[in-house]
Formats: sequence, structure tokens, C-alpha cells
Amino acid sequence: MLPRSIRNLIEEFSKLPGIGPKTAGRLTFYLLAKSPDDVEKLAQAISKLTDGLIFCQKCYNIAETDPCVICTDKQRQPDILCVVEEPLDIVALEKTGFKGLYHVLGGVISPIDGIGPEDLRIQPLLQRLSQKPIKELILATNPSLEGEATAMYLTKQIELLKNQAKIATKIKVTRLARGLPVGGDLEYTDEVTLSRALEGRREY
Amino acid sequence: MLPRSIRNLIEEFSKLPGIGPKTAGRLTFYLLAKSPDDVEKLAQAISKLTDGLIFCQKCYNIAETDPCVICTDKQRQPDILCVVEEPLDIVALEKTGFKGLYHVLGGVISPIDGIGPEDLRIQPLLQRLSQKPIKELILATNPSLEGEATAMYLTKQIELLKNQAKIATKIKVTRLARGLPVGGDLEYTDEVTLSRALEGRREY
Repeated sequence: MLPRSIRNLIEEFSKLPGIGPKTAGRLTFYLLAKSPDDVEKLAQAISKLTDGLIFCQKCYNIAETDPCVICTDKQRQPDILCVVEEPLDIVALEKTGFKGLYHVLGGVISPIDGIGPEDLRIQPLLQRLSQKPIKELILATNPSLEGEATAMYLTKQIELLKNQAKIATKIKVTRLARGLPVGGDLEYTDEVTLSRALEGRREY
Repeated sequence: MLPRSIRNLIEEFSKLPGIGPKTAGRLTFYLLAKSPDDVEKLAQAISKLTDGLIFCQKCYNIAETDPCVICTDKQRQPDILCVVEEPLDIVALEKTGFKGLYHVLGGVISPIDGIGPEDLRIQPLLQRLSQKPIKELILATNPSLEGEATAMYLTKQIELLKNQAKIATKIKVTRLARGLPVGGDLEYTDEVTLSRALEGRREY
């Protein structure tokens, strides 16, 4: 019963994560009430999203230059490297004021989705570690099953290369702390998080 | 720190209702991981949204033809008219199997937003009522403050025209029932809804 162009946009919006058919309908009718200029601005922003975007060949972050602005920033500590799953994770870490460098894996090891270590930028990371002396490697993959497995895999690979003397033995491998989220409620915290918070307790 | 095209799309997405900067970021990075074809399909769907769309000059629904498919449908009861705020309301009512005709007001009376009766399609509605005999007029504006005020205003206007013998006096004006939503919980129902449900109770 709805005009084809409306149905089409509802369908396209529904493909986005977290947007069901009802929200898609609301967004579509919201745009229908907007000026053609505003609607076209959104369409153009989507159409031109990847214009001029490249992957930095050093950290594999999405960027406009290669190497990217972070890799070329002289104010940063080049010997602290933070390994993340996705470019969006960098946005979150940058907000904390972190001043090291990054390495984007491009995902996590996930056998169910058919993603193995060779599909990620693990080889370039190990090469990077062997080429330049790194003091600390922070494994900042998500605290999920896949994120943990990927961190575990990386640690083993690094141990292997350390034994072969291909990378410096003094490199420190760390993982982000697990515990109660700030503003969280102990009562509603799941048992795994709570036991991690206990394990990682610090002198007050 | 983010490339300009990414910041631009995050900003555009954030303008949509119910989408904050975090969701906008997630949607943008989701699109970055999609194939250029998929991204362009969404951009085109937005860009071409209003192509070929017109307002039906009878019911003011958004349509591809004038009069629209609903107004020209011979299977419907032409003497039952349902007044709604927006075209999206018609989609919801159509799902119930309602087989009357519609009239889209294009909003509600809202002095705060500077919307008066003259900004809505109230005059065309009253004309419609005077031209063709209508058995029942269902006021299906939202059960909100503005929706109620608009329904009240319409009722008064109709009374006025009835007294002037400009529209048939036997026209029945009804309003959608207020009460407990199906699947709802009495315990969590607000007092206004509950008192409406009591008022409107029916023999079992």
C-alpha cells in the first residue's frame, strides 16, 4: 500500500544494525517531512563516505593520509602500542587521553564466522614488533569470548617470536583491566565480571 | 581526529530522531565495512525518496497517484472517515484491517510549536464532510495532550457546522478507545490510562 520509494527506504534502513522495521518507518517518514536539501545532505554524506579514505599502512586505521595523523604525531609515545579490533575502538581510547600508537586488527578470531588469524592484521603487527623496539603492547580487544581468544593467540605468537629472538624479550604484554564499570551497581554485576573485579583488586 | 567524511556522516545521522552520536558512529562504521554497492543503495534510496510522490488531494496521504489507491478503492466503505495526524498512522490502521477512508491532518494543533488549526488540513476535512454524506467520523489523533486538543477542536467545528445545517446532523463523531494495551500489565499502567479503562469498561 505504501509508495515504492518509501518501502524501498524502509527496507534499506532496516538493514542497519539496531534498526527494526518500525524505527526504519519512523526515520523514513521523518525524512519525508524534511526539506529536500536536508534529505540530500544525508544522501550525499552516505554516498561520499569512503571518498578519500584509505587504510594507514602502519596501524591499519581508516585515515585520509598514509601514514595517518596518529602515526605521524610526534607528541605520542611510539613505544606503547595498543592493539584494537576496529577503528571505532580508537575513537573511544582517544577520548581517554591515551597517547600511544595503535594497531587495528580488523576483527577478531571467530571460527564460527570463518575468521582465522590469517584474515586479521596479525602478521603486520608481529612484523611491526620485530622492526621497532616496543616497550609495552596493550591488548585492547573486547572482553568477549572472541576478544579473549584473539588476545590469547597474540600472546602465544609473541612468546614464540621472543623464543626465536625475533622480537625483544623485554616487551611487556598487558591487557585492559576487567572489573566493575564506573557508575555500575555491584548488585547487578554478573558473576564473571565480579570475580574479575575481585581478582584485580588493588590496595586502597 | 576522524576523517572529515566520517565526521560528516556521523553528524548527519545524529540529526535523525532517536539516534544519538554513539549510534550514529556505530552506523557510520557499519557502513564503512559494507560493500560500496550496499552503501550506494542506501544513499540512492534516500536521494530518491520523494521521487514521484504527491499528496492525494482527497485524503492528503502521501501517494503515487491522485486520488490515491485507498481513495479509489471500491471495496471500502466511503461513509466511514478516519482522521489521523500523519501518513504513518494510516499504515498502523491498515494493519488492523480497517476498511474506511482516511483524512490526514498533517499534524496536530500545538501552540508551543506555533501550529494552529489553519496550518492543518482541517478546512479541507470540513469541506469533505459537507460535500459527501458521512456516517461516521473517527477521530484517531494520538491520545496525547495535542491530539486530544485537536480532536476537541474538530468536534466543536463540526457542531458549529451542524447547527448552521452545513453538514448532516446525523453524522456520528467517535474517538478511539483508551484503555489497557493488549499484553500490558495492570500493575504498571499509569493512573490516567487505568481510569480511562474503568470509564470505558464493557459488559463481559
